[in-house]
Amino acid sequence: MKLELKIKILDIYANYPIVIMHPRSSLSLGAQNLDRLEVKNEKIDTAFVLDTSNSYVTENELGIFKDTAKDLSLNNGDKVVVKLQTPPLATKYIMDKIKNKTLEKEEIDEIVKSIENNSLSEVELSAFVTGVFINGLNLEETKFLCNSLVDIGDRIDFGENIILDKHSIGGINGRVSMILTPIIASLGYKIPKTASRSITSAAGTADAMEVLAPVSFDVEEIKEIINKAGGVVAWEGKFDLCPVDNKLIDIEHALGINPEGIMIASILSKKKSIGSTHLVIDIPVGRDVKVKNKEDGERLAKKFITISESLGIKSKVVLTDGDKPCGDFFGPALEAKNVLELLEGKYQDSVLEKACLLAGELLELVGKSKNGEGYLLAKEIVTSGKALDKFIEIIKIQGGSILRSEDVPKAKFIQKIYSSQAGDVNNFDVSKITHLAKLLGAPKDIEAGVVLFCQVGDSVQVNDAILEFHANTEEKISRAIEYLKDNNPVIFDKMVLEEFE
Amino acid sequence: MKLELKIKILDIYANYPIVIMHPRSSLSLGAQNLDRLEVKNEKIDTAFVLDTSNSYVTENELGIFKDTAKDLSLNNGDKVVVKLQTPPLATKYIMDKIKNKTLEKEEIDEIVKSIENNSLSEVELSAFVTGVFINGLNLEETKFLCNSLVDIGDRIDFGENIILDKHSIGGINGRVSMILTPIIASLGYKIPKTASRSITSAAGTADAMEVLAPVSFDVEEIKEIINKAGGVVAWEGKFDLCPVDNKLIDIEHALGINPEGIMIASILSKKKSIGSTHLVIDIPVGRDVKVKNKEDGERLAKKFITISESLGIKSKVVLTDGDKPCGDFFGPALEAKNVLELLEGKYQDSVLEKACLLAGELLELVGKSKNGEGYLLAKEIVTSGKALDKFIEIIKIQGGSILRSEDVPKAKFIQKIYSSQAGDVNNFDVSKITHLAKLLGAPKDIEAGVVLFCQVGDSVQVNDAILEFHANTEEKISRAIEYLKDNNPVIFDKMVLEEFE
Repeated sequence: MKLELKIKILDIYANYPIVIMHPRSSLSLGAQNLDRLEVKNEKIDTAFVLDTSNSYVTENELGIFKDTAKDLSLNNGDKVVVKLQTPPLATKYIMDKIKNKTLEKEEIDEIVKSIENNSLSEVELSAFVTGVFINGLNLEETKFLCNSLVDIGDRIDFGENIILDKHSIGGINGRVSMILTPIIASLGYKIPKTASRSITSAAGTADAMEVLAPVSFDVEEIKEIINKAGGVVAWEGKFDLCPVDNKLIDIEHALGINPEGIMIASILSKKKSIGSTHLVIDIPVGRDVKVKNKEDGERLAKKFITISESLGIKSKVVLTDGDKPCGDFFGPALEAKNVLELLEGKYQDSVLEKACLLAGELLELVGKSKNGEGYLLAKEIVTSGKALDKFIEIIKIQGGSILRSEDVPKAKFIQKIYSSQAGDVNNFDVSKITHLAKLLGAPKDIEAGVVLFCQVGDSVQVNDAILEFHANTEEKISRAIEYLKDNNPVIFDKMVLEEFE
Repeated sequence: MKLELKIKILDIYANYPIVIMHPRSSLSLGAQNLDRLEVKNEKIDTAFVLDTSNSYVTENELGIFKDTAKDLSLNNGDKVVVKLQTPPLATKYIMDKIKNKTLEKEEIDEIVKSIENNSLSEVELSAFVTGVFINGLNLEETKFLCNSLVDIGDRIDFGENIILDKHSIGGINGRVSMILTPIIASLGYKIPKTASRSITSAAGTADAMEVLAPVSFDVEEIKEIINKAGGVVAWEGKFDLCPVDNKLIDIEHALGINPEGIMIASILSKKKSIGSTHLVIDIPVGRDVKVKNKEDGERLAKKFITISESLGIKSKVVLTDGDKPCGDFFGPALEAKNVLELLEGKYQDSVLEKACLLAGELLELVGKSKNGEGYLLAKEIVTSGKALDKFIEIIKIQGGSILRSEDVPKAKFIQKIYSSQAGDVNNFDVSKITHLAKLLGAPKDIEAGVVLFCQVGDSVQVNDAILEFHANTEEKISRAIEYLKDNNPVIFDKMVLEEFE
């Protein structure tokens, strides 16, 4: 069944290539909404997803989006032949996964290829992600997916045999990467640290680094920085090594699920694409983070190790305590200042400890330190000021000019918050701290955020300062104080656990 | 986190309410593609799904679709406040189903309500359909879904206590409903038969009926026809009793899956909405139809019976042979003519047999006939000419004027096809017959189609006529002959099953 229609260009935007047909033409084609159509003339032969509407096109017209029309050099009135198309093979393999079959390498390659060339709809991608979430990917399938993502994406070659890297799965605050990167780079290793911006937290590593220096670089720029400084802290969004991965992440985000197999393949494929040879993976374990318990963490760790190995990446997984905040600062500038102060030796905290711990693991992994001595070497690099020097070098090469903690911009309004109750601090509700930081303006207002003035185990008296709010308007401070009334993020030990009458 | 933006109306079309934001504004809102946003000003408070683009809007603009803008009386430049929204509760219940939890009544109601008011995206609907396909709905959940669909849709009240109906699950050809309806109506019962158009077959019942009379009626018109004639054969697409059901069907069609629980709920909710009290369900069982084996058919039958009962519908399920075509005709006019000829008593075939069988079951179910005598009564109604009279009455009341088989329009070109081989007919490949009928122009060319000139068990000699092609152009005949070369739909008994050398 075929139809000949005239192109009508619509000023329309969509993520997927869609054509609009009048319901009567679609009926006579035997086609339904969301069916795939082949659209052909002497110039093109392209697949689209069908949507029907009787208000945009007549029976003789085929509505096509402006951008797509431009890409395909189609003009209003061009004649095309429209035909129902067999769905791509990938849809069969997605169905196989939904029916709990194990997929072969070629089948996973086909799915990845079809995502890459936009021939799967959001409905099909969602079915794939849901199917993988429910039925899982076994180790072999995860390897296949990972390799397929590497093969279809771009790769960066730094012309170097050894590339170090670190990855954290769902950390919250404390910019460990901004300390670890200069430690590693100052020892002569190359470490192209890519980082995300905040999605749900008060600041991402890219946001905090951007307070000090630009972070948006393309592949060539990153190569240049790495060749000069050995290290970089760059926003991962600018150089899109694997568009397929990003499409899957969009769907996962929309559904609020992150199937383990896709997560592992996604992380490790990015590392492989950037040429990592030695990798430390930090998995925080805790109530409010992605990995809830040690057993899940251990299982995940084993998969990461096995698949890294198959990719030729030497890796080590460290399970860390994800129940406590990492350091006392929440907000881009506050966290950036904290990093500089730690490197300047002004004080020590859990951010520095974690950075030295993970840097140490990486140094042992690459053979620079003997087992058990990596942490000490990392610490020494900080204490000696070498890490600070290297960090300043990186900031400069990235084009930044804020080199001292005292030069980090500050919020216009700073307000200490005093406790209305006494007690021992048992823990913090990190989601409430994050919400407060956002009410104060973070991450958009880079200077805004929250500082913790007490720590787990502290004995707090009434009227002791427990928090500090930073914001650029008084109104934002008031909003945060209003929210705080019913949402104290400081959790005190309970004196009375239960009462009976 | 909130943003104030100015409305920019885009000439855009979409199935779901989407707003377009510049990536930088979405970033500062902490939002990602496919996130849900609350858009508010003094006039509106509406939920949208986010899409980002830097080519349609600036950082201060919020792109909104023309239709939506009109619905909400928004103008270019209107100021609105945009905020990340918590996803509707329904998304949590969809996740619960994905995690294989059993859903409560209120949870299924919430999902159905959210589909109805468009607050779920295609990604979420796809996850729901996939989740139900993999994890299933138990009997209770299926009941809940069915009731929920009934509650949210419209209902038709014919002011009658007894309404008869028949439903076939995935039949292929032979318009049994067009014979069964007048049989039942001529006995004084009301039977509002709603039917679909062809999607993948050569003709749907609505297509065949439309050869004789109009089939598109709204609720009031159907009531009027039923009150006059007792029976109607109407296209189900015109009166949309349950839009939720149609949205689910779109997603199922796109994925090529039809989860059992949704199918049962969908069918029975439509019957309940139209007031059916007595229902015969025909489940063809065969290699190429939806239900592949008797065991699946029996399991399905039990679910249909139980849920019908809970809805107050007395039902009977009949498993029929789905391996053979039903009658010899494929194409709207050919099948319509077949119906008239059967009612005119010109011959008998499997279409008539099946119609009398199912009508008989219905007559026994409603207590008109004793058990085992329904078929005979139905047959008598046909033989006596009462069914033909009633059918002519129905055609007239529906506004049609073709009342005799000889008046049914014929194709311009008719071509007999002769066998190039001899043998006993073992079976037919129905998908090939359907494809031939479509190449000949069906269902768009109503007169086009295929007639079988041999039946299962026939001994065919070389040069015996085996098929007849009907088309309105010689070119279409040629196309079908070309396809036929490698795709003979007549399957002969194999003389030699295997050869060894």
